[in-house]
Amino acid sequence: MKATFASDNTAGVSDEIMAALQRANTAAAAPYGDDEITAELTEVARGHFGEQAQIWPVFNGTGANVVALQAALPRWGAVICTENSHIATDEGAAPERVGSIKLLTRRCAEAKLTPGDIVACASSQGFVHAAQPLAVSITQSTESGTLYSTQEMAALAETAHHYGMIVHVDGARLANAAAALDVSLRELTYDVGVDVLSLGGTKNGALAAEAVVVLAPERLSGTDYIRKYSMQLASKHRFISAQLLELLRADLWHRNASHANRQARALGEGLSRIEGITLRGPTVVNAVFAEMPQHVFDGITTAYHCHRWDTSDAGHPVARLMCAWNTSDDDVEEFLAMARELA
Amino acid sequence: MKATFASDNTAGVSDEIMAALQRANTAAAAPYGDDEITAELTEVARGHFGEQAQIWPVFNGTGANVVALQAALPRWGAVICTENSHIATDEGAAPERVGSIKLLTRRCAEAKLTPGDIVACASSQGFVHAAQPLAVSITQSTESGTLYSTQEMAALAETAHHYGMIVHVDGARLANAAAALDVSLRELTYDVGVDVLSLGGTKNGALAAEAVVVLAPERLSGTDYIRKYSMQLASKHRFISAQLLELLRADLWHRNASHANRQARALGEGLSRIEGITLRGPTVVNAVFAEMPQHVFDGITTAYHCHRWDTSDAGHPVARLMCAWNTSDDDVEEFLAMARELA
Amino acid sequence: MKATFASDNTAGVSDEIMAALQRANTAAAAPYGDDEITAELTEVARGHFGEQAQIWPVFNGTGANVVALQAALPRWGAVICTENSHIATDEGAAPERVGSIKLLTRRCAEAKLTPGDIVACASSQGFVHAAQPLAVSITQSTESGTLYSTQEMAALAETAHHYGMIVHVDGARLANAAAALDVSLRELTYDVGVDVLSLGGTKNGALAAEAVVVLAPERLSGTDYIRKYSMQLASKHRFISAQLLELLRADLWHRNASHANRQARALGEGLSRIEGITLRGPTVVNAVFAEMPQHVFDGITTAYHCHRWDTSDAGHPVARLMCAWNTSDDDVEEFLAMARELA
Amino acid sequence: MKATFASDNTAGVSDEIMAALQRANTAAAAPYGDDEITAELTEVARGHFGEQAQIWPVFNGTGANVVALQAALPRWGAVICTENSHIATDEGAAPERVGSIKLLTRRCAEAKLTPGDIVACASSQGFVHAAQPLAVSITQSTESGTLYSTQEMAALAETAHHYGMIVHVDGARLANAAAALDVSLRELTYDVGVDVLSLGGTKNGALAAEAVVVLAPERLSGTDYIRKYSMQLASKHRFISAQLLELLRADLWHRNASHANRQARALGEGLSRIEGITLRGPTVVNAVFAEMPQHVFDGITTAYHCHRWDTSDAGHPVARLMCAWNTSDDDVEEFLAMARELA
Repeated sequence: MKATFASDNTAGVSDEIMAALQRANTAAAAPYGDDEITAELTEVARGHFGEQAQIWPVFNGTGANVVALQAALPRWGAVICTENSHIATDEGAAPERVGSIKLLTRRCAEAKLTPGDIVACASSQGFVHAAQPLAVSITQSTESGTLYSTQEMAALAETAHHYGMIVHVDGARLANAAAALDVSLRELTYDVGVDVLSLGGTKNGALAAEAVVVLAPERLSGTDYIRKYSMQLASKHRFISAQLLELLRADLWHRNASHANRQARALGEGLSRIEGITLRGPTVVNAVFAEMPQHVFDGITTAYHCHRWDTSDAGHPVARLMCAWNTSDDDVEEFLAMARELA
Repeated sequence: MKATFASDNTAGVSDEIMAALQRANTAAAAPYGDDEITAELTEVARGHFGEQAQIWPVFNGTGANVVALQAALPRWGAVICTENSHIATDEGAAPERVGSIKLLTRRCAEAKLTPGDIVACASSQGFVHAAQPLAVSITQSTESGTLYSTQEMAALAETAHHYGMIVHVDGARLANAAAALDVSLRELTYDVGVDVLSLGGTKNGALAAEAVVVLAPERLSGTDYIRKYSMQLASKHRFISAQLLELLRADLWHRNASHANRQARALGEGLSRIEGITLRGPTVVNAVFAEMPQHVFDGITTAYHCHRWDTSDAGHPVARLMCAWNTSDDDVEEFLAMARELA
Repeated sequence: MKATFASDNTAGVSDEIMAALQRANTAAAAPYGDDEITAELTEVARGHFGEQAQIWPVFNGTGANVVALQAALPRWGAVICTENSHIATDEGAAPERVGSIKLLTRRCAEAKLTPGDIVACASSQGFVHAAQPLAVSITQSTESGTLYSTQEMAALAETAHHYGMIVHVDGARLANAAAALDVSLRELTYDVGVDVLSLGGTKNGALAAEAVVVLAPERLSGTDYIRKYSMQLASKHRFISAQLLELLRADLWHRNASHANRQARALGEGLSRIEGITLRGPTVVNAVFAEMPQHVFDGITTAYHCHRWDTSDAGHPVARLMCAWNTSDDDVEEFLAMARELA
Repeated sequence: MKATFASDNTAGVSDEIMAALQRANTAAAAPYGDDEITAELTEVARGHFGEQAQIWPVFNGTGANVVALQAALPRWGAVICTENSHIATDEGAAPERVGSIKLLTRRCAEAKLTPGDIVACASSQGFVHAAQPLAVSITQSTESGTLYSTQEMAALAETAHHYGMIVHVDGARLANAAAALDVSLRELTYDVGVDVLSLGGTKNGALAAEAVVVLAPERLSGTDYIRKYSMQLASKHRFISAQLLELLRADLWHRNASHANRQARALGEGLSRIEGITLRGPTVVNAVFAEMPQHVFDGITTAYHCHRWDTSDAGHPVARLMCAWNTSDDDVEEFLAMARELA
């Protein structure tokens, strides 16, 4: 059973990152982030996100999200997010259980919050019976493979800040978004008003490395303590930092993301030309959502791990197909050939 | 500043493990533990711990401890441990904050619980005002570099089980203990009544890999769900499993641990021959606790990261010096030379 | 500003209950529930709910709900409920924060769950990334003033049990529901498959007294310990028990609830005869939801605390008006007179 | 079995408070503290504690402590307290479970912290692996029936504030302490640097009423939200406020406490004159700790609920005997007569 398109977390690790791990493998180094690689990572991160930025490497995406949101919120805080957001549906209730955080979920088109969602939730500010909406979390690129434009992000941040809310971005696929929008990481975050970011590394080619990037340190607190008790502080920390450093120090993050986006576009175009298969919206990042007849889906899943993401109004399966930094032309062609044959 | 003896987590990664990571780096594999390497790890772990055993890889030691204890305890449970245990002093209150677990800390000689500690705590079973003592956690080898004999462990487990308590071992350095006691992993855990184990890999030569090993599955529950919401489930899971597999599949775990123990013994012997330096007890695993004059300690810490672990009755610093799988003869000799010169 | 119809928790305390408190005021009695009044309450509660029932008095409704749900769920459990349920919207995230419980909220007609909601959620059972749906919580009578029939409850319970889920009823207004449906408390709970109940006393005429009633003790655990650490165990416990005992020992619970329902019906009928005012559905318990022109609502709220519960499709305010055990005919008539004059 | 001396929470309710509840029993009033009695309570409390003070009534003492400590601490905070403090031993781990708060327990003489305890704990400030000591909690009068002098309190507060820590007082028996020390409530709290207080009402003659009194509002935050989600906000709030108001508006708090103290002194003096019975220290508030031969203790406990608090070095039982606001001369005499006969 092939895992190729099941998710972008089925991919392996970039050779450059394996080499970076090897270089980091010196005889001894101070643990818990007091090492030279982490220091260099901080410098490089500030180049991307601004001099004020702090970067706190963690193990995984849920860890990044839950650390970030705890640093953003007092004990009585709640987070506005879409009802299909990763934090709401795929983290085993870690935000609630580890962070004691209430999620105020909104039903949204294309998995994207609007300023109106924030305004609607803000009405319960000051009402003691309600968990207090004090943060907004958006996913960029989204769980549905869509994108917020920088203008949309700026508008969300402006509204959020008007109500005293912190703006968090779940950027498990931020690299794909930046590559697709052709903007820098800073233009996609700090410059549009993002206060804290979960920066994805694993899907971008790393082994296991994500980071909380605090963009507005004056608006958050305790990130280092929170990372520790949230069990996201690595002892041999240099090996986590080395992965992120390798992604960020030159353009590996961008090359890997662009490649994944490009392969998804090719996959999407190929599928859309197959009779009976239709795409759910344009392919803008590295995800393809394809509605297909049941027998095609069944055929594909004899060979591929493949998520039935949804069911169309007509009752057909909608498959989510993800491309990764290492999805090859052959991988795409092989899949398309199978789909063509089945259709 | 040399990190060599600061802790066994300052060491690098065994070459064998780097090679295993490289082998695991295939184009795609199912995430979250549904991969072949994890399946093989389970088989190998059962060879070590018994056919009933379950192994759940996690990122770090705090993660292993807090997942294990949550699986061991109902919401109203408390854990008996020493007041200097890692879970009580070095995990940023993760047991309390992530697991809602009360720690019933005991003042203990040599960092070792006794059956008497369990009996004393058991008196509050059934008293509704007290958090219920339903688990015992011991560290093997201990934070003070001492060892429980297998007989001591069996006696603790017998007492604990008599009161319906689960027995947990924080085995961040279990390999060092097994090597020192010349017993198998199973003889040191399942055979003496341990129900659940935090198995250390990182200090044993891995990059970042620990595991919850459930030895008595009928007495614990929900480990998989707990690991997930505790943010300890890796997406590219095969890379965590590969590290543990490499340690366990042949004898790497034992070689690495034995080496560290041997170097510590050499270091301890060397130090004990220096005028003015005395060891706190025999060196049985990979830790040396050495009392030394202030000026010697001060001199050493100009060159080495070195923990002042304690202060002796005479007011002298007691340094903790840890050896690792890769501590070389030269490392030991260089340190001893400096100490000799300072003393 | 009159609080009369703002909520049924604005009412005073029944004279019978004040007298019961006075009788309970003996010189000394054992604390924490080891007293004779609590023992008698247990007997009386078993008369209502079955010999297997356990009753655990608590201070308030949120306390009852969160204690009950914790006793029903393992650490990894989630609760299916409507998105407008009290636990989801009015408890300051106590279920999430105190109980580490995820709420799986459903959009529902008339604030009522259906078996279909349970089936939909059950699909994530066994999926490690999702909080596990292991309990269903319904409110009877509902936050929208509607009722589940006993058949509807039985159908929900059957579906829930099919999937191994516990059935919880938030019965802050259970007395009103039982009176309206003309069934006994047992017929409305145990007989239709309810496992655990939050039994309301405060809105039913008490000062501050609610209870967790465990109907299926074999399916829950730790209620006593959970009540304690959830800070819902009263020291002078007999005074909490005395209130519940007075409600339950004869028919005070039923008289009070019937009166409230009757006054609401009168209020609803009066309002529905006023030009421009329309009711949102029939008045079946003690709540009236009345859509009215803005100027009428504005006029009323110069004299009455009155919740704008919703806004109609036409943009008109929908007021929630609650009647209580002590709402008098004059109260109703006075309100109607004002509404008539304004309309 | 008589509950008379088992605890001061076995007593009934002062007649004045029962009358106050009756007066509060008007037809309707705004819930959740928006009522006139609560407003009056705030005024009266400010008379006692200073114009800056905020008073937040809650249901019980654990509730007061855990709300207060949460308002005092960020997510990563820990509290320094004695190892025998109520929060550490008698609250079912509510601080840990509800508040995610780590307790740093100290072994103390006479159940009293010293500035040295604070200094010792402060050494871990800034160390990311340790829960951060950011509050100090003392009990006044203590669980061992001892008192902090106002000078001792001021010295503790000065040290705590030096390290940026909040000072909390568990004042379940603050009234007894103030009466014994012949100081005002303000002299015992705000004037000596206390930041937040758990003010006891229940043991002082109320039915069920305690309060969080925020003395330094600029140093705490979110108390109202925390009270709500901690399930300590009463709906018919006026009845909780009325109890506290009655205690505080004139001198009922002082009369009740003085009476309890006086009766304890009489009991202590009587016991100390009995051959074979010795007191553990002087009787300064309403608790007597009496060491007695086993057969005397056994005899007493055939008639009285009586806590064996401890065991003396000689192996004798040490009984804790509490007097309450309503302990009569006859109660004392009857107990002494029995003890004399048994001795």
